[in-house]
This record gives sequence, C-alpha cells and structure tokens, in this order.
Amino acid sequence: MKPPRVLLFDVFGTLVDWRSSLLNIAVTTAARHGVHADWARVVDDWRHAYQPAMDVVRAGDRPWQDLDSLQRETLAGVLDGAGIMLPADAREELVQGWRRLKPWPDSREGLDRLRRRHVTATLSNGHLALLADLLKFADLRVDAVLSSQLADGYKPDPKVYRTALRLLDCPAQEAALVAAHPSDLRAAAALGLRPVYVVRPLEWGPAAVPEPAPEELDGLIVVPSLTVLAGQLGC
Amino acid sequence: MKPPRVLLFDVFGTLVDWRSSLLNIAVTTAARHGVHADWARVVDDWRHAYQPAMDVVRAGDRPWQDLDSLQRETLAGVLDGAGIMLPADAREELVQGWRRLKPWPDSREGLDRLRRRHVTATLSNGHLALLADLLKFADLRVDAVLSSQLADGYKPDPKVYRTALRLLDCPAQEAALVAAHPSDLRAAAALGLRPVYVVRPLEWGPAAVPEPAPEELDGLIVVPSLTVLAGQLGC
Repeated sequence: MKPPRVLLFDVFGTLVDWRSSLLNIAVTTAARHGVHADWARVVDDWRHAYQPAMDVVRAGDRPWQDLDSLQRETLAGVLDGAGIMLPADAREELVQGWRRLKPWPDSREGLDRLRRRHVTATLSNGHLALLADLLKFADLRVDAVLSSQLADGYKPDPKVYRTALRLLDCPAQEAALVAAHPSDLRAAAALGLRPVYVVRPLEWGPAAVPEPAPEELDGLIVVPSLTVLAGQLGC
Repeated sequence: MKPPRVLLFDVFGTLVDWRSSLLNIAVTTAARHGVHADWARVVDDWRHAYQPAMDVVRAGDRPWQDLDSLQRETLAGVLDGAGIMLPADAREELVQGWRRLKPWPDSREGLDRLRRRHVTATLSNGHLALLADLLKFADLRVDAVLSSQLADGYKPDPKVYRTALRLLDCPAQEAALVAAHPSDLRAAAALGLRPVYVVRPLEWGPAAVPEPAPEELDGLIVVPSLTVLAGQLGC
C-alpha cells in the first residue's frame, strides 16, 4: 500500500495528555482557593460530558459552539452535580487549562520527523484560537492547523474530515488519520482515509482499561508512539 | 497604544521573495526545454495578471478558485500573448513554483521571535494546500495558517479579514496586519486592525520604484524587516 501523503492528527489524547495536565491545573487552582475535592473524578467526569454536549450540536439542535463555551457549561454541570463550590475565576482557569496541555513524550519528535516527508495537520474538535495557543504551549509543529470549526461541526461527523481533505486538496486515499480513538478512526476510514491507531494507554489514567484497537478496519496501522510511526514510514 | 496580541501576515512579497524565486525557476525550467524569452518580464506580467483575475471572483462573476487554477490560466494568457511556446509540463512546473519561494532573509528569525509573545498567522490569498507546502519549503513557522480561502474570497475583501479575526477569536483592535502592500493595509485598517508596513524595496526587482507607505493610516508602523518589528515589539 502506498504511504499516505497527508497525515491528519487528532489532538486531545493523541498528541497531548489532557488528563494529567488538567488534573495538575485543577489541583493547583483549587488549592489556591482552598477548595478540596476528588479532582481526578471531576476531570474525568468533565471529559465524559464533552461528547453528549457535542451530540446536541451534531444533531442540529443547537448552533456550533467553540470548545471554551462547551467546556464552561459542562464544567459548571459537573461541579454543581458534585456540590463543589469553585469561584468563577477559578472555573475559567480550568477552562483555559485546555490551552496548557502537555504533549506526550514522543509527540514533538514524532511530528517533526513525520513532516519531513508528509504534509501534517491537526484535525481537532478544538477551535483554531485554542489550537494555536495549545500548539505554541506544547511546542508542537504542523504544516496546517485544521479544526472541526472550519466545517461548523465536530468529529466524527463526516463533513469534518471532508472539509479537511478539501482544504488540503487531497483525495481521501492519499490521507491518513492518526488518532487514539476508535470512533474517530472508524469515521475517517469510512471515507477512505487510512486509519492509524496510536495506543495511549495512559489517556484516562493508570487505572483505566484502554479501548481495544479497531481491528476490523482495513489497512489499520497500530503504533505505540509517533516516533515509531515515523520509523515505519521511513521518516 | 497597546501592542497587538495577534499578528496576521501577508505572504507573497511580505514573507517570501516571489520574483527572484520564480525567475530562477522559470529560467531553469525554460533552459531545460530550450525555450528562450525575457523571463523577468513574463514573471512580472504574470504577477500583474493576478489582481484582475481575482477581481472577477471578487465581483461575484465567478466562483472562488484556488491560486493554482488562477495562475494556470493567467500564465497561459501571458505566454500566449508573448508568443512563447512552453510545453504543458513546464508550465505546470512554473505554477507549482509558487510552493518553492524563498523567504526574505529576515522572515524566519522575525517570525520565530514574534511568536514568542504574539499569536502569529498567515493571511494570504494563497490556498491552504499551497501555503502548507510553501511554509514547509521556506521553513517559516506560524501559530495558524489562515487563507482567504476560508472566507471564499480574496484580500482586500473585508470578509477575509473578518473571517480571520473570527477564527482566532480576536477583536480587530487586538490584531495587526503585517504586509508590504498598501492596499492590503488600507483594507485591514478600515476594519480596525493595526497596519504594519514592511518595506520590501526588492519585491518587484532592483529596477522597480517601490510604492510609498500608506502614511494616512492611523497608528501606522513602518519597518524595514520583521526582525526590526520584533525588536520594536520587545520580542
């Protein structure tokens, strides 16, 4: 099989470790405000609330919203549900924390090597303003910063992947999606993109059981890191 | 005046030296095909044909086209008008040459310094696929790659600047446009963006008379290079 010319990368979970980063931000922020809670649970519940919030938009029941707005709402729901009183400015620090997520140890080198021989781009449900800040914070370099915002949708809506392919002037057969999430890969593969599954066993923390690879997908590549992917693609 | 948070950069002429790059590509390509002509004139005429071609789209008389398509058409017109017979594959090499333009000597360092304290983005009439290739070739790094393509228009149509501001979640008052062309700066300034004029006296070659700075614009910054701009902004 010909190697893909264009590589699209999911961001949260695939390039950056949102959980340990947000947990760190939450604990630090809460300590400053003297608020005690099970922050690991808050962070996980918050992240889990993200898909249902996007579902409402995907179903057409609400206009497109940027991630800051969605996260602000879902965080309020999670905190209120758990009876945690956190002042508004501290909540906003957590929302803005999505711009200060640490990359996985292999992300920077992997992206740098992969862009030597491939066009690389993000394809994230984060909006461009957030992605620009986050990629700068994490010092991750790609050739183009693409977001589901450009399609007024969210992954795994097919229009998001189609918009990215159109903007990069790339047939689906010449592109791959690199992601740590089977649902993202299934949607991309259904359109003809090559699925590349990066195993991120720590995404949901050391105690979580990782999702199995979507083995049913044709031509699936499974790698433990972006540097291994770079090696496999000869970069 | 507060320094701008977001810096938008014009690309052709401002970050990269299209003329000497294309002249070099044209002369080399033509020599390989044994075709002799005044290539400096061809390149200048080709570049001049670019605005009228976009005008037709801006007037709404034709749907949006990417730069490759426009340049392919205008090159054919220029070559045919001058009676120059260049084979199709050589013409295509010239069109693709817009992806291999050399940066001005200060562009790389200037952008690297400016992105330490500002969000930086391109805002070019080139489409994203071209910009991704060009920025990689020239080794120029920005936080976001934006194009007039995302507004289905071309600069200086106001909707192009408005789309960039919306995508970066930035009020006009917090943004600057950095460009070597007064018309671009006038359109941006009319919307409230800070105009930064980079003097590129060699853009049209050593014999050309540069356009005067648009002195009438409020708050105009005039700099001879991006490194000087970085110094002025404390980067």
